Amino acid sequence: MNSNWSRKEIYKVLEVTRGKKSTASLVFNAILLTTISLNTFAIILHSVKSLRHDFVSFFSDFEYFSVIFFTIEYIVRLWVCVENEKYRHPLWGRIRYMFSAGALIDLLAIMPFYLSNFTSDTGLIRILRLFRIFRLFKFSRYVHALKVIESVFKEKREELILSFVFFIFTLLISSATMYYIENQAQPNIFSSIPATIWWGVTTITSVGYGDAYPITPLGKLLGGIVAVAGVAMFALPTGIFVSGFNEHIKSSKQDKKDFKFCPHCGEPLS
Amino acid sequence: MNSNWSRKEIYKVLEVTRGKKSTASLVFNAILLTTISLNTFAIILHSVKSLRHDFVSFFSDFEYFSVIFFTIEYIVRLWVCVENEKYRHPLWGRIRYMFSAGALIDLLAIMPFYLSNFTSDTGLIRILRLFRIFRLFKFSRYVHALKVIESVFKEKREELILSFVFFIFTLLISSATMYYIENQAQPNIFSSIPATIWWGVTTITSVGYGDAYPITPLGKLLGGIVAVAGVAMFALPTGIFVSGFNEHIKSSKQDKKDFKFCPHCGEPLS
Amino acid sequence: MNSNWSRKEIYKVLEVTRGKKSTASLVFNAILLTTISLNTFAIILHSVKSLRHDFVSFFSDFEYFSVIFFTIEYIVRLWVCVENEKYRHPLWGRIRYMFSAGALIDLLAIMPFYLSNFTSDTGLIRILRLFRIFRLFKFSRYVHALKVIESVFKEKREELILSFVFFIFTLLISSATMYYIENQAQPNIFSSIPATIWWGVTTITSVGYGDAYPITPLGKLLGGIVAVAGVAMFALPTGIFVSGFNEHIKSSKQDKKDFKFCPHCGEPLS
Amino acid sequence: MNSNWSRKEIYKVLEVTRGKKSTASLVFNAILLTTISLNTFAIILHSVKSLRHDFVSFFSDFEYFSVIFFTIEYIVRLWVCVENEKYRHPLWGRIRYMFSAGALIDLLAIMPFYLSNFTSDTGLIRILRLFRIFRLFKFSRYVHALKVIESVFKEKREELILSFVFFIFTLLISSATMYYIENQAQPNIFSSIPATIWWGVTTITSVGYGDAYPITPLGKLLGGIVAVAGVAMFALPTGIFVSGFNEHIKSSKQDKKDFKFCPHCGEPLS
Repeated sequence: MNSNWSRKEIYKVLEVTRGKKSTASLVFNAILLTTISLNTFAIILHSVKSLRHDFVSFFSDFEYFSVIFFTIEYIVRLWVCVENEKYRHPLWGRIRYMFSAGALIDLLAIMPFYLSNFTSDTGLIRILRLFRIFRLFKFSRYVHALKVIESVFKEKREELILSFVFFIFTLLISSATMYYIENQAQPNIFSSIPATIWWGVTTITSVGYGDAYPITPLGKLLGGIVAVAGVAMFALPTGIFVSGFNEHIKSSKQDKKDFKFCPHCGEPLS
Repeated sequence: MNSNWSRKEIYKVLEVTRGKKSTASLVFNAILLTTISLNTFAIILHSVKSLRHDFVSFFSDFEYFSVIFFTIEYIVRLWVCVENEKYRHPLWGRIRYMFSAGALIDLLAIMPFYLSNFTSDTGLIRILRLFRIFRLFKFSRYVHALKVIESVFKEKREELILSFVFFIFTLLISSATMYYIENQAQPNIFSSIPATIWWGVTTITSVGYGDAYPITPLGKLLGGIVAVAGVAMFALPTGIFVSGFNEHIKSSKQDKKDFKFCPHCGEPLS
Repeated sequence: MNSNWSRKEIYKVLEVTRGKKSTASLVFNAILLTTISLNTFAIILHSVKSLRHDFVSFFSDFEYFSVIFFTIEYIVRLWVCVENEKYRHPLWGRIRYMFSAGALIDLLAIMPFYLSNFTSDTGLIRILRLFRIFRLFKFSRYVHALKVIESVFKEKREELILSFVFFIFTLLISSATMYYIENQAQPNIFSSIPATIWWGVTTITSVGYGDAYPITPLGKLLGGIVAVAGVAMFALPTGIFVSGFNEHIKSSKQDKKDFKFCPHCGEPLS
Repeated sequence: MNSNWSRKEIYKVLEVTRGKKSTASLVFNAILLTTISLNTFAIILHSVKSLRHDFVSFFSDFEYFSVIFFTIEYIVRLWVCVENEKYRHPLWGRIRYMFSAGALIDLLAIMPFYLSNFTSDTGLIRILRLFRIFRLFKFSRYVHALKVIESVFKEKREELILSFVFFIFTLLISSATMYYIENQAQPNIFSSIPATIWWGVTTITSVGYGDAYPITPLGKLLGGIVAVAGVAMFALPTGIFVSGFNEHIKSSKQDKKDFKFCPHCGEPLS
């Protein structure tokens, strides 16, 4: 490596920083984003039988190119990660980096390809092919704004878990009761409590496919109550999210107020 | 009972207190939670025909174990409840405890088993088996956080009842009208107002199974209006919950402000 | 009329006042509420063929009793309404009272019965029977709390109309486009724009009966976009209701603050 | 043009101003609104086969009248637009006006008619006929209140895009996984990832037509999780809209406070 392309400079090119971006960084990230997007499209289109058969070599070539590209990216990131304060140690820093969320996603994006060469089990190969969809998660590096939602989720963790528990309770109680009511009238559809839970989920979430619904008067009464209870299942998390967003906005405004800057030099005042 | 296992100590082991928990309390509550969870799974899995037939003795043994465990728990709780200020009197305190929500749930969890021995009516036994699902409610002892939702429900009781009345009104008026519109076109599905109410509920809650829907132009017009009105049925309780949550947060913050503690000893300052 | 049962006293018995209620008033209103409730049940149950045939005379007798009761109530209310400040004039006051919402509902509750005696057209009689459901609206006299929702509706009238206009726009544009896309693939279901509007309503409100859905790729693309747009149709009115409720609560708190009372005599201080 | 009907006066008649409207302006805008409304009805009714055949000449005449009316309107607006400060230049001003949203909508409302005379391709004529529905957008000139919603959309752009990205992520990941799970059990319905995305959209938005739903236990498990995740897809944008509306209301109140007027002359005080 010559002096122009030192490890630090490559690190700056790869990393998405908030400050001014160099042309090299913009170009690299544009190429990476395009490759991830094209991979997403390739995975989706590859599942269409007619396209899969007509463009066999195209899909194969693109897969090879993507894996090579992502592998090089992974190796280079592993090499330069020590420039980050958090992973400063040449060995332990790199190992800790390998277990960071970003690095694991990068690994999951290429591993299935390599693993599929060690097996001839078509079932396993199918599952490995499914894992390619995790390449989508490589986008997450670019979604800074996700942090607002993440922080609302964290702040309101307790209430959200609670409303989930509330949902599970309602689901289990209503499904078990519905099973005892409808089982004799529709032994094939309401064949067991797990089967009735499927009805329960589609009703509480108001999806209502129409593959399972009560036909007895008592079953319809319970079904109606569950459908109405489903409205509360929408209202509760919405209420929690709203109050979370409001608190977030207020506290971020407070932060801005409390944190003053010198009007002359722009430096923060303590 | 020896001095180590006095009534007071057993009470402390059973009761979920907010302060520091003893090891015995943690162990007992872990066992209780596990037993309730396993019971839930057993009830759900027992409804699956193939599992029920293959593991007859297992389900039977587990049921005996659970009932014995829950019965001992009930008796011990009844014995130690007098340690609680509220149920201090040896007789009347215990009777009042028996009618508390927690004790009634504990009783409902074991009663069906004993009652089913006094009857050979399969229909009644089926219903008694259904009541086992109430063992789930034994979880409620552990859901402290439920109190926030409970208090929002209480505070906004009037508005929630009102929006429920609003829902019932819309449901009855629209179902009765739809019955008169669609009855002649679909005499089997819209056979009576109660039958049409089933359509009304699935439409207002936006479940829409597809087993009942209008086919006449006038019926479709009314159906469309009802479907749109259903959006308001979601928006109203959500609005009520949101303002309830907001008020709750504000008042709890106010409480914290008004209620100050000494920074040195941590004692509340009046 | 003797002096004990003067017009003023009857007025006080009939009218639902906020202050202390007399026993006579409580009894009368309990009877009225029961009669309205029983009427609602009678209308619903009468639509069930088997019940209608088995209890012919019962339903007929109850209908006669109800109409007589409601007719007497209407006449007495008309007689005593002049005790109200608003309808003080013996003639014009009573005429104005007749056109008030409450009096019109009371009239609509009994008119169908009398009108059905003047006709032998079964179609018209069917419609007149339908109008009996408006007896439900007699309940509205008792729903004071409806005023909060009413005031939120009024305050946010503009925004709610706007989001309704937004809904109609989305509905018409998407239905017209869907008609041109799907008409050739499903000429019976997407037979015209009005027929496609039915699909549009069930999709935007997320009811989704399953009687009409696109099958062409382009139709499914548009259908998906419309389904997602439907989420906004839920979010917008909810947002409007929430901010309406919040403002209402704030302003009612402000009113309480601004409006002070003397701590000694309880009289308002200006 | 005589002095009474100068360009400036015609401009004032055409333009919807906030101040006092002249009678001529009210009359013209009433006629325009009526014509747009009638056009909307004509487009909708023309799609009904029986009406289209029975009233051939009526629909044709109304179409000619509408196009002539809208064409004159377009030309006159183009002539007078220079009275507006923004489009003052006789040539460049008019060209810039032609590319304003309002003028483009006006052009799209008449262009299809003229273009359809240059082609005999029935497919193209069908599409051009579809474009007539854009006449509906001519209404937008009158919807001032749309600006509140528009400003909320703008303010919360980032969060709304984010929750849309969140939706796309959930949709793609769940659809791809569901494809691998259900493909073998239902090869015709879950035939490819794009086909499964249709299932995903109808489930996440809780429409649930019932044309595609999982039947394998694993598929039903994933389907249930996706249906529950769909609730969050409703709760997130609602939360965003609510906080947007609240901020809007607060800031508009602040504006009113900061901006004072003289109580005597009504002039703003600085």
